[in-house]
Amino acid sequence: MSESDLLKKVVALCKRRGFVFPGSEIYGGFANTYSYGPLGAQLKKNVRDLWWQLFVQRREDMVGLDGPILLHPEAWRASGHVEGFNDALIDCKSCKARLRADHLLEKALGIDVEGLSLEAINTLVQDNNVRCPHCDAFDWTPARHFNLMFSTELSKTQEGSSIAYLRPETAQAIFLDFKNIINTMRVQVPFGVAQVGKAFRNEITPGNFIFRVIEFEQMEIEYFIHPSKWETTFSNWLEEMQKFCRAIGITKTSLFEHPQEKLSHYSKRTVDIMYDFPFGRSELYGIAYRTDFDLKRHSEFAKVNMEYLDPKSNERYIPHVIEPTFGLDRSVLAVLCEGYREETLEGGESRVVLGLHPSIAPVKVGIFPLMKKDGMAEKAQAIARTLSKRWHVNYDEGGAIGKRYRRQDEIGTPFCITVDYQTLEDNTVTLRHRDSMKQERLNIADLESILAPAFEINV
Amino acid sequence: MSESDLLKKVVALCKRRGFVFPGSEIYGGFANTYSYGPLGAQLKKNVRDLWWQLFVQRREDMVGLDGPILLHPEAWRASGHVEGFNDALIDCKSCKARLRADHLLEKALGIDVEGLSLEAINTLVQDNNVRCPHCDAFDWTPARHFNLMFSTELSKTQEGSSIAYLRPETAQAIFLDFKNIINTMRVQVPFGVAQVGKAFRNEITPGNFIFRVIEFEQMEIEYFIHPSKWETTFSNWLEEMQKFCRAIGITKTSLFEHPQEKLSHYSKRTVDIMYDFPFGRSELYGIAYRTDFDLKRHSEFAKVNMEYLDPKSNERYIPHVIEPTFGLDRSVLAVLCEGYREETLEGGESRVVLGLHPSIAPVKVGIFPLMKKDGMAEKAQAIARTLSKRWHVNYDEGGAIGKRYRRQDEIGTPFCITVDYQTLEDNTVTLRHRDSMKQERLNIADLESILAPAFEINV
Repeated sequence: MSESDLLKKVVALCKRRGFVFPGSEIYGGFANTYSYGPLGAQLKKNVRDLWWQLFVQRREDMVGLDGPILLHPEAWRASGHVEGFNDALIDCKSCKARLRADHLLEKALGIDVEGLSLEAINTLVQDNNVRCPHCDAFDWTPARHFNLMFSTELSKTQEGSSIAYLRPETAQAIFLDFKNIINTMRVQVPFGVAQVGKAFRNEITPGNFIFRVIEFEQMEIEYFIHPSKWETTFSNWLEEMQKFCRAIGITKTSLFEHPQEKLSHYSKRTVDIMYDFPFGRSELYGIAYRTDFDLKRHSEFAKVNMEYLDPKSNERYIPHVIEPTFGLDRSVLAVLCEGYREETLEGGESRVVLGLHPSIAPVKVGIFPLMKKDGMAEKAQAIARTLSKRWHVNYDEGGAIGKRYRRQDEIGTPFCITVDYQTLEDNTVTLRHRDSMKQERLNIADLESILAPAFEINV
Repeated sequence: MSESDLLKKVVALCKRRGFVFPGSEIYGGFANTYSYGPLGAQLKKNVRDLWWQLFVQRREDMVGLDGPILLHPEAWRASGHVEGFNDALIDCKSCKARLRADHLLEKALGIDVEGLSLEAINTLVQDNNVRCPHCDAFDWTPARHFNLMFSTELSKTQEGSSIAYLRPETAQAIFLDFKNIINTMRVQVPFGVAQVGKAFRNEITPGNFIFRVIEFEQMEIEYFIHPSKWETTFSNWLEEMQKFCRAIGITKTSLFEHPQEKLSHYSKRTVDIMYDFPFGRSELYGIAYRTDFDLKRHSEFAKVNMEYLDPKSNERYIPHVIEPTFGLDRSVLAVLCEGYREETLEGGESRVVLGLHPSIAPVKVGIFPLMKKDGMAEKAQAIARTLSKRWHVNYDEGGAIGKRYRRQDEIGTPFCITVDYQTLEDNTVTLRHRDSMKQERLNIADLESILAPAFEINV
């Protein structure tokens, strides 16, 4: 199976089995948005919950936050997003295509135009007679900056600044509440704040399925430290992020160290955790040392003292920040791509398996009666009801058993339980394992305690 | 304690203990947005997760969905929101106050203007010489319709309709994916689709803390039925909603049946579950029989056949819909208001208790060493580490034990465990119950199995 085949197959499986649908599909789709169907919603929720469990619930040095999508616009001026979060776009007057100027020049001239002024970009386009890749015309508007933040307006007030931006990252809400958290939560530096939520970027070149979308979900941590500790904290968190990958079954990762000269204005070190997606090695997660940039800027713009008083050393300082960021949609895409496999079985039959880690599988157990008759259906339903108190299960009485196994294999269900004639006699069932396809005979009463450890995570 | 005192006290507790902060507070707040602090984020997550567990995980007839906030704008034309989801607003030219015209006339003339045209509203204002409640001027702009949907623009395309709305309700994403779900999930009518997520309304009169906000979180169900079944399904779901209230400790509820002549255009019956908030009886949840209005409209606007073929009767029809809607922010506000109490203890000392149901309490167990010395701290930390694998716990070694109990009482922690000298000898600890303040002596090894049932829900 080639890599481009793999993406196609994953997309098709997502559509076919209710993981991910194109957004607003009945209206012809909308701007590369996606809708997580029943199984995708559950898979995404499982990854999100696991992340929260590991990084908030289990850690003494972390607290959670759930801040708004709409922050005061001044916060985005302080963060640098109003001024600097732009793409240079250029329109072909002939075919009306709108393009990113950097992509256009990269393709046409093979040069990297990062950091160039609009003037320089326009000169390059004109001097090199760069033509439209869609219609071959040479008839451009000047390149202009478009801010990547979606903006909207409040009708609350008649005048003055009623603009609001949809947050392009969840991070800033954490900085805005830094003082509130310090004052209410008895936390001491070093400590971190975690947040999960939607963010929005008005990009014209989204693509590769749910990899780059205008509306996405981030899981972000701002970890506040004394500046002298940044290097060790950075390494520790990078290790924690890789552990998280392994915990949910993501293995095809590598690290990309951003070269010093290309770092964002706020960062002193940035490392991306790359993943070998079917369309190439691309950013999965990232970690940045943001220094005290954000707290300092908000301190200036809001005229609020952001200093922290260390109770032991009595030192007063603005904490520095290590920021591990996890893309939730990309996590889902990575586990889907890594989990997808096609197998030829002994009898020549083939099966599609989604080898998801049991902790994140959307359906934990498939439960079947061998046949509907003789009370087997009722028995199986009773097991389903009991197990569904703890886990998401799937009762299925339709078709041959082999077919039902195939259906569960394809959506990544790690276990299947079958109620047969023997069950009616001795209250045992078969437990079938997704990957090995091995079956064992177990007492119904033992099912919960035997299954539970499989859904735990090892970190 | 008066009711207005109660709201003040809840708001103050929320701020003081990290449940809810004013949004963008360091910038002077922003448009009545709020930020859920560490404890509020956890409380909200617990309510959300419990809802999902009850209505998705445990039910065979329900599936989940996680659709986008940005839908195709045509979907909002079909739903009637582009044309009809308006408030009539009027501006005072003298003091620049912007008001809802219906509120202005209600207050000034004591009349209900629902359904009146803008012309009729303007005439009423002029004929009755209605003055501005803020500056007493009589100098109005004409009343105008403002749509309650926030709108934004995509930069993706240069021309044509690049507008996008932030969803004012989560429901429509479910209708858009109705066919996808039918085709992929082996569901049969009756079945329901559940979704949790943010929605946005550009209201100029938000208020009462997190009760009415421009950005809020909904938990919605669209339950698809044969039209002949609407009355029984409606009653069943109304009962399920009330059970949910009881499960999370919401008791001060009552029902409000919308009068036939005031029903929304899409509804044949609507009942609100009202809650006695400190500021008065107000809508907590709602359930509506939306008929086949939405599917039919999308079928017309998207030119897609929304019919369902019943496999047993072979009948072809557009399913009707019962819609139970739960406000997540309002749920949080209700459990906070209902849980808050002040008690005078035997010794004359007083305590604030947040009587949250253990299943939703943000911190499940407080764990204290009696003193830090002699290995008690290490022992308590070890217990905290073990229990934190299952629950959100709080290790606290600061101050007198009584003070530590008070801190946990105030945030609703149902149990506290104390490690003392005896623990070092026989591995027992005291378990202290929040409400009764009773203490019992237990083996450390038994803690998990004794605590676990308390966090279960009874429904």
